[in-house]
Amino acid sequence: MTQTLALGIDIGGTNTSFGIVNRRGEIVAKGGMRTKDYPVLSTFLQALKKEISPLLEQVGHENIAGCGVGAPNGNFYTGEIAFAPNLPWEGVIPLAKLIGDTFQMKVTLTNDANAAALGEMMYGAAKGMKDFILVTLGTGVGSGFVSNGQMIYGADGFAGELGHVISVRDGRLCGCGRHGCLEQYTSASGIIKTAELWLEERDDETVLRPLKGKVGGRDIHHAAENGDAFALEIFNYTAKILGQTLADAVAITSPEAIIFFGGLAKSGDLLLAPAHLYMEMNLLRVYKNKVQFIQSALPDSDAAILGASALVW
Amino acid sequence: MTQTLALGIDIGGTNTSFGIVNRRGEIVAKGGMRTKDYPVLSTFLQALKKEISPLLEQVGHENIAGCGVGAPNGNFYTGEIAFAPNLPWEGVIPLAKLIGDTFQMKVTLTNDANAAALGEMMYGAAKGMKDFILVTLGTGVGSGFVSNGQMIYGADGFAGELGHVISVRDGRLCGCGRHGCLEQYTSASGIIKTAELWLEERDDETVLRPLKGKVGGRDIHHAAENGDAFALEIFNYTAKILGQTLADAVAITSPEAIIFFGGLAKSGDLLLAPAHLYMEMNLLRVYKNKVQFIQSALPDSDAAILGASALVW
Repeated sequence: MTQTLALGIDIGGTNTSFGIVNRRGEIVAKGGMRTKDYPVLSTFLQALKKEISPLLEQVGHENIAGCGVGAPNGNFYTGEIAFAPNLPWEGVIPLAKLIGDTFQMKVTLTNDANAAALGEMMYGAAKGMKDFILVTLGTGVGSGFVSNGQMIYGADGFAGELGHVISVRDGRLCGCGRHGCLEQYTSASGIIKTAELWLEERDDETVLRPLKGKVGGRDIHHAAENGDAFALEIFNYTAKILGQTLADAVAITSPEAIIFFGGLAKSGDLLLAPAHLYMEMNLLRVYKNKVQFIQSALPDSDAAILGASALVW
Repeated sequence: MTQTLALGIDIGGTNTSFGIVNRRGEIVAKGGMRTKDYPVLSTFLQALKKEISPLLEQVGHENIAGCGVGAPNGNFYTGEIAFAPNLPWEGVIPLAKLIGDTFQMKVTLTNDANAAALGEMMYGAAKGMKDFILVTLGTGVGSGFVSNGQMIYGADGFAGELGHVISVRDGRLCGCGRHGCLEQYTSASGIIKTAELWLEERDDETVLRPLKGKVGGRDIHHAAENGDAFALEIFNYTAKILGQTLADAVAITSPEAIIFFGGLAKSGDLLLAPAHLYMEMNLLRVYKNKVQFIQSALPDSDAAILGASALVW
C-alpha cells in the first residue's frame, strides 16, 4: 500500500488554508478559515477538524501519508510554535502534537517561510536547486535558507530569521524589542511605516499626502506606478535596504538564486529590480552577476499549502 | 589495502605548513616554508616538492590516501584559487590540479577557514557538532559555516565570507574595494588600524601614543592587559562590531557554537568575552543564551594542517 496524498496546513496570522496534495504537487481538495476568529486554541482545533474531516473522507483517510504544517515561529525539531507575535495564541504551544491528536496522523511542523522554501524546491522556482534563499515579503519578512539541498534549521530549529537581521543600526523599533530589523523596512507594514514617517517629517508633494495616517500598501504601489516621485523614492529606499542586507546573506551562503514570495514581492520592477542592483553594488567580487532574483510563480494561496504538504515527503 | 594517512597543506599569505596526518588526527611528520619567498608559482611548487617528498618517502607514498589543501580564496568545487589578495600569485590558478600533478595524488582544495572548520569538526572543539560557525581572526577575518553536519560551500564554492559582511555602513575602505567589511575592524590589521586612526583623531593619554605610526597588535594587547584605557576601548569597540555582526549571522544559521581561531582569538577575555555580551544584546529572543563561544584548542600550526588533511576523508 502506498499512501500518495499529504495534508498541508498553512497557519497565518490572518487566515489558515489547507489542502490535500498528491505527489505531483496537485491540490486535489482545499479550503480555508480565518485564524483571527479563534483566539482560543482549542476552538481553533475543533474548527480545523470540522473543516478538514470532510476533505479527508472525500479522498480516503487511509490514502494520507501524513500532515505538514507551516506556521509563524514553528520549530521543525520540537513541533512547537513559540512566542509567535502574529498568532492569537500565547507562549509555547506543542502544535504538531495537538494537530496530530486531532487528526490521528503524523504531523511535521516548520515555520511558514521554511515551508514556502520546501514548496518552491519541490514544485516551484527552486526545483533542482541545491543552494537558494527564499524570502517572504508579506506582513513581516521571513526566510528559508537551503544549502546542499537541505533546509538549514540550525541547532535549535529556529534558523533563517533574515527579517530580524539588523539592517539599520539603531533604526526603527521592531516588535521583537530590538532596533533596525529588516522587517521594519521591507515588509508591507514597513513600507507603510516609511510612507507615514516621511509624510510626517517632510513636505514633498505627493498623491499620498491626503491619505496621511491611513496610507495602505496598495496606495503606495499605485502612486509609484503612476510616477509619483515620493512613492518611487519609498520603493528605492526599501530596495536599497533589502539589497544591502541580501548582499550580506549571500556572503554567508552563496546561493544560486533568491526567490521572493508574498504580497510585496509582487511589486516586481518597482522593488526587486532596484533591490537586485543594490545587492550587486554591495556584493564581493566573487559573487557578482551570479545570484538570480526570481519571483515565486506558485499561486499565493496554493504555495503555502504545497510547502506545508512537502514536509511529509 | 587501506591507506591510513593524508597529506595536509596549509598555504597562508606568509607561511606554508604541511604535515602527514593519520586518521586519529595525529601529525606523524611535518614541515614548513615561507610562501612569500616564492613570487613565481612554479618555483613555489618545486620547493614544495623538495620539502614534502622526503616526508612521503619516510611514511611510504603508498600509504597516503590523498592530499587536502587549505588556501585563501580556495574553491572546493573548482580546485582553483581566485584573485587571492594575500597570496603572491595573481588571477585564477588551478592549484589542486597543479599540486596533484606535482605529487601524483588526488588533491582536494578549500579555503583556509573552511579547512579550519573541518579540522575543528574532526579533531577539535566542534567534534560531534552539526551546526557551528568557525571564525578566524588573523591577518584577515575568515569563516566556515557548518549546517546539518555539512560545510556550506554555496552554489559556487565561495560561501562563508563573514569577513566581507558589511558591518559598518559606509565604513573603512576594504581591500575588496567596498566599505565597512568586518575584516577592516576585527582582524589583527583592523585593530591596529583602529589604534592608528584614533591616535590621529583623538588626544587620549595612552602608552600607545609614542608608538604612533608603528603600533603592533601585541602592543595593543599588552597595553590593554595593563589597564590602558585607550587600548581597552579599542578592544571594546572591536568586540562590539564583532558581536553585532555575529548576532546577524546567528539569525541565519542558528549555530550551537561559534569557534574562534587565529592570533586575535587568543585575546580571550579582552575580546571574546565582551563580543559575546554584545552578540547576546543583539540576538533575537529565540537565540539568546544558547550560542557558545569557544576558543580553538588546536595548536595553531597544527590546526591548519589537520584541517587541510581532513578534506581527504
